[in-house]
Amino acid sequence: MDTLTNPSIPQVTTGPLPASRKVYVTPPEAPDLAVPLREIETADPVEPRVRVYDTTGPYTDPAASIDVRRGLPQARRAWVLARGGVEAYDGRPVQAVDNGNVAAGALRPFAHTPRPLRGLAGQPITQLEWARAGVITREMIYVAARENLGREAALAVADERLADGESFGAALPAHITPEFVRAEIAAGRAIIPANINHGELEPMIIGRNFLVKINANIGNSAVSSSMEEEVDKMVWAIRWGADTVMDLSTGRHIHDTREWIVRNAPVPIGTVPIYQALEKVGGDPTKLDWEVFRDTLVEQCEQGVDYFTIHAGVRLAHVPLTAKRVTGIVSRGGSMMAQWCLSRHRESFLYERFGDICDILRRYDVSFSLGDGLRPGCNADANDAAQFAELETLGELTKIAWDKGCQVMIEGPGHVPMHKIKANMDKQLSACGEAPFYTLGPLVTDIAPGYDHITSGIGAAMIGWFGTAMLCYVTPKEHLGLPDRDDVKTGVVTYRIAAHAADLAKGHPAARLRDDALSRARFDFRWRDQFNLSLDPATAEKFHDETMPRDAHKTAHFCSMCGPKFCSMRITQDIRVAAQQGMDEMSARFRAGGNALYVKPQP
Amino acid sequence: MDTLTNPSIPQVTTGPLPASRKVYVTPPEAPDLAVPLREIETADPVEPRVRVYDTTGPYTDPAASIDVRRGLPQARRAWVLARGGVEAYDGRPVQAVDNGNVAAGALRPFAHTPRPLRGLAGQPITQLEWARAGVITREMIYVAARENLGREAALAVADERLADGESFGAALPAHITPEFVRAEIAAGRAIIPANINHGELEPMIIGRNFLVKINANIGNSAVSSSMEEEVDKMVWAIRWGADTVMDLSTGRHIHDTREWIVRNAPVPIGTVPIYQALEKVGGDPTKLDWEVFRDTLVEQCEQGVDYFTIHAGVRLAHVPLTAKRVTGIVSRGGSMMAQWCLSRHRESFLYERFGDICDILRRYDVSFSLGDGLRPGCNADANDAAQFAELETLGELTKIAWDKGCQVMIEGPGHVPMHKIKANMDKQLSACGEAPFYTLGPLVTDIAPGYDHITSGIGAAMIGWFGTAMLCYVTPKEHLGLPDRDDVKTGVVTYRIAAHAADLAKGHPAARLRDDALSRARFDFRWRDQFNLSLDPATAEKFHDETMPRDAHKTAHFCSMCGPKFCSMRITQDIRVAAQQGMDEMSARFRAGGNALYVKPQP
Repeated sequence: MDTLTNPSIPQVTTGPLPASRKVYVTPPEAPDLAVPLREIETADPVEPRVRVYDTTGPYTDPAASIDVRRGLPQARRAWVLARGGVEAYDGRPVQAVDNGNVAAGALRPFAHTPRPLRGLAGQPITQLEWARAGVITREMIYVAARENLGREAALAVADERLADGESFGAALPAHITPEFVRAEIAAGRAIIPANINHGELEPMIIGRNFLVKINANIGNSAVSSSMEEEVDKMVWAIRWGADTVMDLSTGRHIHDTREWIVRNAPVPIGTVPIYQALEKVGGDPTKLDWEVFRDTLVEQCEQGVDYFTIHAGVRLAHVPLTAKRVTGIVSRGGSMMAQWCLSRHRESFLYERFGDICDILRRYDVSFSLGDGLRPGCNADANDAAQFAELETLGELTKIAWDKGCQVMIEGPGHVPMHKIKANMDKQLSACGEAPFYTLGPLVTDIAPGYDHITSGIGAAMIGWFGTAMLCYVTPKEHLGLPDRDDVKTGVVTYRIAAHAADLAKGHPAARLRDDALSRARFDFRWRDQFNLSLDPATAEKFHDETMPRDAHKTAHFCSMCGPKFCSMRITQDIRVAAQQGMDEMSARFRAGGNALYVKPQP
Repeated sequence: MDTLTNPSIPQVTTGPLPASRKVYVTPPEAPDLAVPLREIETADPVEPRVRVYDTTGPYTDPAASIDVRRGLPQARRAWVLARGGVEAYDGRPVQAVDNGNVAAGALRPFAHTPRPLRGLAGQPITQLEWARAGVITREMIYVAARENLGREAALAVADERLADGESFGAALPAHITPEFVRAEIAAGRAIIPANINHGELEPMIIGRNFLVKINANIGNSAVSSSMEEEVDKMVWAIRWGADTVMDLSTGRHIHDTREWIVRNAPVPIGTVPIYQALEKVGGDPTKLDWEVFRDTLVEQCEQGVDYFTIHAGVRLAHVPLTAKRVTGIVSRGGSMMAQWCLSRHRESFLYERFGDICDILRRYDVSFSLGDGLRPGCNADANDAAQFAELETLGELTKIAWDKGCQVMIEGPGHVPMHKIKANMDKQLSACGEAPFYTLGPLVTDIAPGYDHITSGIGAAMIGWFGTAMLCYVTPKEHLGLPDRDDVKTGVVTYRIAAHAADLAKGHPAARLRDDALSRARFDFRWRDQFNLSLDPATAEKFHDETMPRDAHKTAHFCSMCGPKFCSMRITQDIRVAAQQGMDEMSARFRAGGNALYVKPQP
């Protein structure tokens, strides 16, 4: 395949994960749909296969032919067309300014851009509108099947321990139906970010009554990174479990990079359109205006971006509330809009034109991710007046967007010490009518640059438990530089841990199946199963092999930590045999009293 | 220095951390004491030096002469002798079996072992006994000064934000006095693990009303590691912030390795004596008996070990409660004692002889770390009948040990999903009379071997917040192999994050000073200060330099994440100037109403 031999063609990682194969389930409501799952093979006689959620797209399917120059198949385009209410049209022509006025010869335009679709007047377009109209879309059927992963198996082996958890009011039904999905979307409690121009998408759902999702940020900047790297990072991020990817590019080639990413992305792609708008005005925030922003929205809507971060909640009166902060405004978009507001002493065009923005996004079913431009940049600034004033405004904007038929989620902080996280979540739920919360971390301390995947993973697990629907990852490079490939993987794995820990604590009915399968493998000394069931099999195996490299050790009934004589698990297996030989009765007899064995410890 | 040139002499890392110098404070109550702190220099005009807690001992003091063959100075031995009530005596001779019957030529005995001390009958020996007698020891004065770090500065710049926090009943006074320390120890709520034979010790305190501490495990096993590596790992672990170190060696050379470690350790050293006892009986748990265990206790008491993990809470009737677990018994000591109990069908000698054990430990002031032999080994087994039955027994044993005059802390799990962590903490406080809790993690999910520093760091931060006094680190190698030097550092830094996040959330009056100093450095683009104030300056700088290596970039008012045009912090500084020019009044006027700028967003 020439993608492997021609260095000018972006390379991406393909092929299944260890001991894994992609399977497709067919929802009874739509027998032509093929919903992907990953099946991990084990040597466990009770549970020979463990099914897990699969974000990896066709890249892990050996039957798929991958050529990033052509992009992924656009199966979903047919669903959109079949549903009706849309038209194909000649989109906005790509302009030199879209790519930072790069010389034409340096450009690498994507060669197979589809003709854009847009909604027709007077007809439902967005998933929210269809849901309100009582229509269950194919996207809803798809995500229901996808979320149900493992639930039937869970019910089959259910015991009281699987059911426990504290959901803080989240509703986690034993089985997700398409109708449940529809009702959640109609209520605004969940979104399916799915631009009608993103035909390559495998739909997924974001809401507190579903599995907790994670986002990985990629993107070049003026200082670093190239288009090839970004496409590769996207594929790499979803290989390790990113549910959505945000392209935060700010440099040149910004239009082309995004086109390559979207055309090859089976997951929703998010952007921050103001970044590109700023490039178009030469980098001076005060030169931004509604026209350049509107033009950028249309450009990206036509490309198929699934959700936009829009910092419409930064109001003029909020800005002075940040003046006494330790770190002021740390959101890029937030600081741009604050500067814009100050320089003209008026409300931003994002706020004033919010209705117009809704009209554009609705036409392509691009979801809002209402940006937290005034999020705290350090623990000292957490939960302050500026942050909560903006959150109230985001709640007002949510209702406007809902009235316009748009799907909405709300972005959250940031940097928050542990004792203030719950208050953040509760405030968001009440201020924003239970629209899904999408948080960055939060980081629970500021003293560990280089380890902020960990400082933030702590906060992410907690806020996910409390009700956040999607967690935006933080990599070890946060505050220091742009993440490379290794950082992307570390960030994604860390956030899969946080999201899964949250699902467990909420009491998701099937989340613990994988934990239990891995724990059984550990107890049975099935080392390979333990590696394969883990989030990162290669790393687990590498760590094991550093002290016990030989193949015989893969079945050894001990490990290098304790050595053969000290292995608690081996001893416990001996105990279990003894226990089966009547320990229960013996102990009960002793406990009934009188037996001299039950001495008080000698005082 | 020949330690640097002779490869047969163990090498350790010495010298100060970047921009740091060791300072010694003199407590007014004992002017001859020198309590170490670390001062980080910054370019901040408001706060040119930030003081942080210093676990590193003389190794970071350029004035100290380090020779691990001689060990550290034994300043504390004079305090013990001055206090009286102890005698020096000819200790138990070292026997071949203490080092696994290694041939004499292969041994590397430590050449400067001091003559052991022991308590005289009828006189106070332990910190608990002195505290109850109303005596403030030098150790208590020392830890009070050590814990006070930064508190005066905190009070000087105090605002309402520094005081906030949710302590869940912990009492965190603005200033720690020696009398407060004494009262906490007398009540059993805190311990100073300080064997009278550990003259090299810089005392520290473990209790829920003090800074949260962390422990690093080191130790060789039958499969891997050497004595030299372990001494180096100890020095390395405290360099990055370990407050105590446990030597979990199980292989040969076990006595000598421990001697080298204790003689070079400024931090408390903990062990699990049953591991060595098992070596002495050839590795068969059923051959253990009171005599070999008693002999091992005396051997280690004389060496100066500061706390012992003793699994006396594993009772015969508890063992069958583990039979239906997913992972049975995962504690090495717990599984040994369970096997012993089963094989003889009687209570263990640890339980039956608990009073005798107390008498031995008291004589040297070795603290109990009552082991959780039945801790859960996976999320499925968390908070089950076996775990809580043992915890109740540990509560009973605590009261016996207290009656005997011994200091006690309680070990805890392990693997616990987030929603069950608080219940664990609360149960421990009530069952064990508020004796300090010392937990391993807990890991909040089982699916990430290779990343269990993170899965457990989440649980550790939370349980530390809820009241755990010391957190036992987990390294990336957990479940897979023995940690190497890099793993030790990663584990320690991760747990420093967890402990510090807990201090912040509890509302420790000075914890946030370092966060704020670092955040100000970040906001002011003082890159070097940001690195130097972080937990791991070298890693932070390395990450920064990967994309912005030039020295000019160390003062650049942007970073590679956003590039020069997009820097939110730079923009915010512009905003701050504007704000000073009267934004407050302007905005107040607008908010008062009527101004056309405050338009409702267009619906």
